[in-house]
Amino acid sequence: MDVDFAQWYTDVVKKAELVDYSGVKGCMVIRPYGYAIWENIQKDLDARFKKLGHENVYMPMFIPESLLQKEKDHVEGFAPECAIVTIGGQNQLSERLIVRPTSETLFCEHYRNIIHSYRDLPKLYNQWCNVVRWEKTTRPFLRTSEFLWQEGHTMHETEEEARQETLQMLQVYADFYRDTLAIPAITGRKTEKEKFAGAEETYTIEPMMHNGVALQGGTSHYFGTGFTKAFDITFTDRDNQVRYPHQTSWGVSTRSIGAIIMTHGDDSGLILPPRVAPIQVVIIPAAQHKEGVLERAGALRDELAQRFRVKLDDSENSAGWKFSQYEMKGVPVRLEIGPRDIANNSCVLVSRVTREKKVVSLDQVTEEVQAMLDQVHAELLARAEKNLREKTFEARTYEEFLDIAANHPGFIKAMWCGDTACEDKLKDVTGGVKSRCIPFHEEHLSDVCVCCGKPAKHMVVWGRQY
Amino acid sequence: MDVDFAQWYTDVVKKAELVDYSGVKGCMVIRPYGYAIWENIQKDLDARFKKLGHENVYMPMFIPESLLQKEKDHVEGFAPECAIVTIGGQNQLSERLIVRPTSETLFCEHYRNIIHSYRDLPKLYNQWCNVVRWEKTTRPFLRTSEFLWQEGHTMHETEEEARQETLQMLQVYADFYRDTLAIPAITGRKTEKEKFAGAEETYTIEPMMHNGVALQGGTSHYFGTGFTKAFDITFTDRDNQVRYPHQTSWGVSTRSIGAIIMTHGDDSGLILPPRVAPIQVVIIPAAQHKEGVLERAGALRDELAQRFRVKLDDSENSAGWKFSQYEMKGVPVRLEIGPRDIANNSCVLVSRVTREKKVVSLDQVTEEVQAMLDQVHAELLARAEKNLREKTFEARTYEEFLDIAANHPGFIKAMWCGDTACEDKLKDVTGGVKSRCIPFHEEHLSDVCVCCGKPAKHMVVWGRQY
Repeated sequence: MDVDFAQWYTDVVKKAELVDYSGVKGCMVIRPYGYAIWENIQKDLDARFKKLGHENVYMPMFIPESLLQKEKDHVEGFAPECAIVTIGGQNQLSERLIVRPTSETLFCEHYRNIIHSYRDLPKLYNQWCNVVRWEKTTRPFLRTSEFLWQEGHTMHETEEEARQETLQMLQVYADFYRDTLAIPAITGRKTEKEKFAGAEETYTIEPMMHNGVALQGGTSHYFGTGFTKAFDITFTDRDNQVRYPHQTSWGVSTRSIGAIIMTHGDDSGLILPPRVAPIQVVIIPAAQHKEGVLERAGALRDELAQRFRVKLDDSENSAGWKFSQYEMKGVPVRLEIGPRDIANNSCVLVSRVTREKKVVSLDQVTEEVQAMLDQVHAELLARAEKNLREKTFEARTYEEFLDIAANHPGFIKAMWCGDTACEDKLKDVTGGVKSRCIPFHEEHLSDVCVCCGKPAKHMVVWGRQY
Repeated sequence: MDVDFAQWYTDVVKKAELVDYSGVKGCMVIRPYGYAIWENIQKDLDARFKKLGHENVYMPMFIPESLLQKEKDHVEGFAPECAIVTIGGQNQLSERLIVRPTSETLFCEHYRNIIHSYRDLPKLYNQWCNVVRWEKTTRPFLRTSEFLWQEGHTMHETEEEARQETLQMLQVYADFYRDTLAIPAITGRKTEKEKFAGAEETYTIEPMMHNGVALQGGTSHYFGTGFTKAFDITFTDRDNQVRYPHQTSWGVSTRSIGAIIMTHGDDSGLILPPRVAPIQVVIIPAAQHKEGVLERAGALRDELAQRFRVKLDDSENSAGWKFSQYEMKGVPVRLEIGPRDIANNSCVLVSRVTREKKVVSLDQVTEEVQAMLDQVHAELLARAEKNLREKTFEARTYEEFLDIAANHPGFIKAMWCGDTACEDKLKDVTGGVKSRCIPFHEEHLSDVCVCCGKPAKHMVVWGRQY
């Protein structure tokens, strides 16, 4: 893993049966074990969205080219990576159709039909779907031409309310990453250069992977009235004035599975955070041919299945083979039970993170499994926080910045003048270190830009990215 | 509704806010109230699939043209209705990509990678996704160029097991239609002419809409080894022989929402079967400005929300407006509560189907609501069964067939020789009456084909279709 992280990643996604490669360039097959993680992510996020009043909808997957072109910055950003349908029903189409790379334009077209009065606001819509962004080099989950995601699109009466929504949804993502995936992250605002095409502000959540590289975990955008003007969406406000609504959008994708793998995994393979693990507890019987073992293990499976996602592996494979198989698949808790355990009314729980073994009474097994799952979550989070802390550096001078960029993989905190030219230069000289975000709580490390020496405007977190 | 059913349908889907038209030809926007029905359908079907051991996966949405062409009958069936991507990332693609109309070919390509031994079988996969079939004339839910569905694709060691799976999944669909959607249906086998492109057998569930027209509600296909030979998928069996696995596929789509609308609706609008209704109970306060009314209604909402999907409408609109609004939206049970009810510790429940009013004690309100929801389901099912019974006719002669086809909308049971020529002729002379299926329980109505007079092979159910 520490020798060749990229190869480790490729091996793990394949051996743990998360994905298969397909004959379609840049597209992946998400296999049952991988898709079950996505289903658990969906269930968790969807409940968070609905609790805040969001409703799910479904928009067409095709965008007429003229519709995508209505907002200038937006089309410029996405045109280079579009897949385009030119033939339908054996005829050349009179207008080309873009396979959605994101759906702002489609939501705007619909909102134009249904928003007329302040009584129609806010509109808080979300959709779960597939999108396509044509990529030259691809890696499972991290960068694929087609991926799955959710995209929230909301409309509001006032700028203040829309800005609040933008920040609220970023916080939802941060809570989800921490509380569900056990992944800590830096959150903040993107610079002008790194903003979403057409947005006034883009906020981002940036977890750090085990190797110190950032992965953009989710983004939340405030659009102001840029799109609503371009699409002529208006409403009559409380004072009978015609106004443009204020807009947001926000999304998290199957990249989050990549983040799980690269944040928590180790040399034995995957480690899945308990709250999204398809199998939370695997029961492995010892001496399963002995009388009563499989019966007791089966009863235990049924008992635990009332609270947890459980699998009993009673196959003919050796216990040793099973151990390494489920370690590789990242199952958080292993439960071993054999004739001697049964005689003692006990079983053994083993944590995937620490490998700690704990003998527990069968009378308390539900509580003990719950406790170990919570402990695995806490340990994963603590370990990832330690990694984030230890691989975050401060640079006060240009030389310091270059030295860290060359020798210490991780995030760099450094002051910045606000000019895109300095971002470009730092990226060029370091071979890829970019601004991740301007964090919400900026520290004052120095008075001047680490690159050009002009007065500093912001502290920026910099880093390489997936 | 009985004057112009097509116009009634169009009005209902629009006024009940199920869909909006989009600027993309043949594609629809599924609005929150419509999408919530689909989410309830998904939850119900998904649980039925998983209970039988099926796992969800996700395949790419693009099919390289050469892959689609591997099975001859299949490509012939689907080529005329394909949407084709020819440009990706601003370059002409070297191979054109078909937007999936169905995914047999993609599943086969993947199965080829992962099936090697009888130990790898059965494979019981399903996916929830969008598909595209280019349509000339479209109607929301019934026929759209893009639609949402689930497609199950399974592989088995033996023909017997695969045939069992095919029939089992048809039964799952029939149970789902009856027990969840309150829709009865005829089930059976499609004729050679009406089979799915590439299938050896196609089984179908055919509910009858209110106006006597059939809607294909779901299909289940047995493929034999046609695809597995074309894709060279083999496994080593228990006797160490290399063999081809036997394959099935089965699907239900957003058309099922069209079936709900056209089976249960009435002149006041939608009627939603309680088990998929986004709002099962709407609470409408009377004299809501009077002290204590909204508080009591709110407490009632919280109490009922523990068991049901409930909405309290405390808006400023009149009670009369609210009544017709939620009738139009098909909410199964209306709960009215005002000052006098509160004084009597009671409220009024109103059934959307019969309009029957029932005064119930607030102490028993949960049980009473449950009872009325069950009653609505039973009434909807009974009414639909009556419609199916009353609009199913028997034809023993050619003249009788033509007379029924011209004057009595509905299904026609009639004997058939087995020749496609007779199916073609009956369709032509009646302007669209086609064979729906050969039902599992055939009756013997006569010895000869209703069309040509040659010896009869089967009893077929005939009808017009959406």
